[in-house]
Amino acid sequence: MSYDFSEMIDRRHTNSVKWDVKDNELPMWVADMDFRTAPGIVDAIKRKADTGIFGYEEVPQDYFEAVQHWYATEHDWAPNTDWMRFVTGVVPAISSAVRRVSHVGDNVLVQAPVYNIFYNSIVNNGRHVLSSDLVYQDGNYTVNWDDLAAKMAAPLTTMMILCNPHNPIGHVWQPEELRRIADLAAANHVTIFSDEIHGDITDAGYGYTPFASVSDTAAQNSITAVSPSKTFNVAALHAATIIIPNENLRNIVDRGINTDELAEPNAFAIDGSIAAYTTGSEWVHELNATITANKQTLTAFITKNLPALHVIEGHATYLVWIDCHKLTTDTKTLCDAIRQNTGLFISAGEVYGGDGHDFVRINVACPAERLQDGLDRLAAGINQFAENK
Amino acid sequence: MSYDFSEMIDRRHTNSVKWDVKDNELPMWVADMDFRTAPGIVDAIKRKADTGIFGYEEVPQDYFEAVQHWYATEHDWAPNTDWMRFVTGVVPAISSAVRRVSHVGDNVLVQAPVYNIFYNSIVNNGRHVLSSDLVYQDGNYTVNWDDLAAKMAAPLTTMMILCNPHNPIGHVWQPEELRRIADLAAANHVTIFSDEIHGDITDAGYGYTPFASVSDTAAQNSITAVSPSKTFNVAALHAATIIIPNENLRNIVDRGINTDELAEPNAFAIDGSIAAYTTGSEWVHELNATITANKQTLTAFITKNLPALHVIEGHATYLVWIDCHKLTTDTKTLCDAIRQNTGLFISAGEVYGGDGHDFVRINVACPAERLQDGLDRLAAGINQFAENK
Ligand SMILES: Cc1ncc(COP(=O)(O)O)c(C=O)c1O
Ligand SMILES: Cc1ncc(COP(=O)(O)O)c(C=O)c1O
Repeated sequence: MSYDFSEMIDRRHTNSVKWDVKDNELPMWVADMDFRTAPGIVDAIKRKADTGIFGYEEVPQDYFEAVQHWYATEHDWAPNTDWMRFVTGVVPAISSAVRRVSHVGDNVLVQAPVYNIFYNSIVNNGRHVLSSDLVYQDGNYTVNWDDLAAKMAAPLTTMMILCNPHNPIGHVWQPEELRRIADLAAANHVTIFSDEIHGDITDAGYGYTPFASVSDTAAQNSITAVSPSKTFNVAALHAATIIIPNENLRNIVDRGINTDELAEPNAFAIDGSIAAYTTGSEWVHELNATITANKQTLTAFITKNLPALHVIEGHATYLVWIDCHKLTTDTKTLCDAIRQNTGLFISAGEVYGGDGHDFVRINVACPAERLQDGLDRLAAGINQFAENK
Repeated sequence: MSYDFSEMIDRRHTNSVKWDVKDNELPMWVADMDFRTAPGIVDAIKRKADTGIFGYEEVPQDYFEAVQHWYATEHDWAPNTDWMRFVTGVVPAISSAVRRVSHVGDNVLVQAPVYNIFYNSIVNNGRHVLSSDLVYQDGNYTVNWDDLAAKMAAPLTTMMILCNPHNPIGHVWQPEELRRIADLAAANHVTIFSDEIHGDITDAGYGYTPFASVSDTAAQNSITAVSPSKTFNVAALHAATIIIPNENLRNIVDRGINTDELAEPNAFAIDGSIAAYTTGSEWVHELNATITANKQTLTAFITKNLPALHVIEGHATYLVWIDCHKLTTDTKTLCDAIRQNTGLFISAGEVYGGDGHDFVRINVACPAERLQDGLDRLAAGINQFAENK
């Protein structure tokens, strides 16, 4: 490895949301990694800092070409740069698109359990969440296609937010699945918002498929959001890109992101993103190997030591979804107890909807040494909970 | 002087909105300065860059204390830190507040000619602009108090956006004026949004008065926005603070900035702002002396060489408002001709509303050498325009 993913960096007292915890606590919750970002990004930010002038910044063509280059070389898809718009974040773009593409009172379709903030973007804007829950059977999730088709066909369903790959279950959507979703959506006049923020983080051999790449139908009826934020651990770079092949839809969404003040980059967003997309490939591949190893460590540990738990096999994201239903169907109480007794802070699954109350989500994007600490605390917390039941 | 405000920094091809001009052109338009920011800010940003981790960032109490310290020491007003919320920009906060405080179809009051983007925040959200135009007489502007009172009393008027100090006329609102506005607003249930982004940039002896400091009535019925962005030339730091003494109003606006995704700081916003507010005082005082000198240079030059023009006396902002009505009442055409013939890019006044079409706005926040270049181009452009009339 050329990069060091084992350094134990102390992030306490750094204004980090993740690390705003008590001194004895170990946070493995929010999707934020304990690794230093790729050096090319740090260098680019420092070069910009050196100029000392941070006036109004615009988005150069280089930025869009860097995004295109990344998707062409990493994911075999070269979106036209004209289809792209800079935005300050994926969630802000989702909220804005919800406001522009659907109307108050409409249904916005999701597939629970899913990234909880999707619900905020829908509900806070006066739309209704309609979930075609993923079906959990034999330790894995599948789509109930009849249910999805029926919910797409509901007259008030105007939009669907797809999580591609899927947080929290780690599923890498397959081309056939995406094509089928695209066809259903087009037939029912449902616009797809494909959140592809986790697309770069997959196990080797399990590369993700951009939704818009699967068919012309998919491309013409979708808004795709990508960002270096999860990939390179730069959530607070506030940089993302939306890709909208259809001109009319692009104009509608473009108006929204401008009115909602999401279109202007901060002083570091452009240079940082270009550096990520043009110099960060090897770093990401090594990161992915590290995450794969961490997922294997966790799975082996749980299989061996915590037989009541079942780890869902997922090949994307650094978030692991763990079935605890043999122990409890109220993982909120479980997670509170684990935190209280061991200091380990993981996410209770309830907020993701669907059957989430049976699950916990653990973020394994940290050095192996820290992961081991987390696993030891997990075992202690689970065992103590089981004893006290 | 401890700081150098004379360095001719080349900002072409740096993704600067201001400097996205042809090679022979000289931009003196948008409110963005050609000075390097205070060194303490650059140092703080570099220190943060060195950490290499840019995950989700939260706003520490230190941030609010730095804001409080600045207003206490610079402007004799120590707002309670509980009244403050971080936001990613002043305009985004205005737009969000318009959406939360007023309803679709309401009137939002302004005083034209005024910062043009206020109109976007109002119109883009389906509200109506109602202007109590400032009255231009004998070369200066005053408020028509009867007109303002009548427009405040209009049943659909629910909000007023005050520009304190006022861009583009450079007026520093006086305590008596602010108190009178506060009383009218309270009597008519009109909420004041006081945009104080230019408050730090005033001539010596002409310090601005924070709206909320003039009376309890003013404090309890207002939202104040402040930011280091104009003061320190850090527009793309994307950092601002709203201050809302009234708890109920604060909760309403707080909900809006969260839903509108304006409450989360980027990786550099907090450290940069704290450095500005705790280490930048002397820098700002020297900046102000430089701007005062530049305004004097411009005024002397125009008085001597361009007698058809009249410079409005303003003691705030680095933007100078110039009456051209003896030459033309269509300064848009004038500015186009000046840019075409001399490369000087200044703002035509029409976009600010009211009698703006008689005026131009020139940004003098640049080294004296660059200002002189601008003035020479201005004289050439004006003379050529006059000859061709
Ligand atoms: C699926 C998904 N989308 C979006 C985000 C956040 O995106 P942003 O920080 O750009 O708003 C996350 C963060 O965890 C996520 O998991
Ligand atoms: C009065 C006024 N308010 C706000 C702004 C811009 O604020 P921000 O960049 O924080 O949105 C400007 C910029 O010129 C301004 O003149």
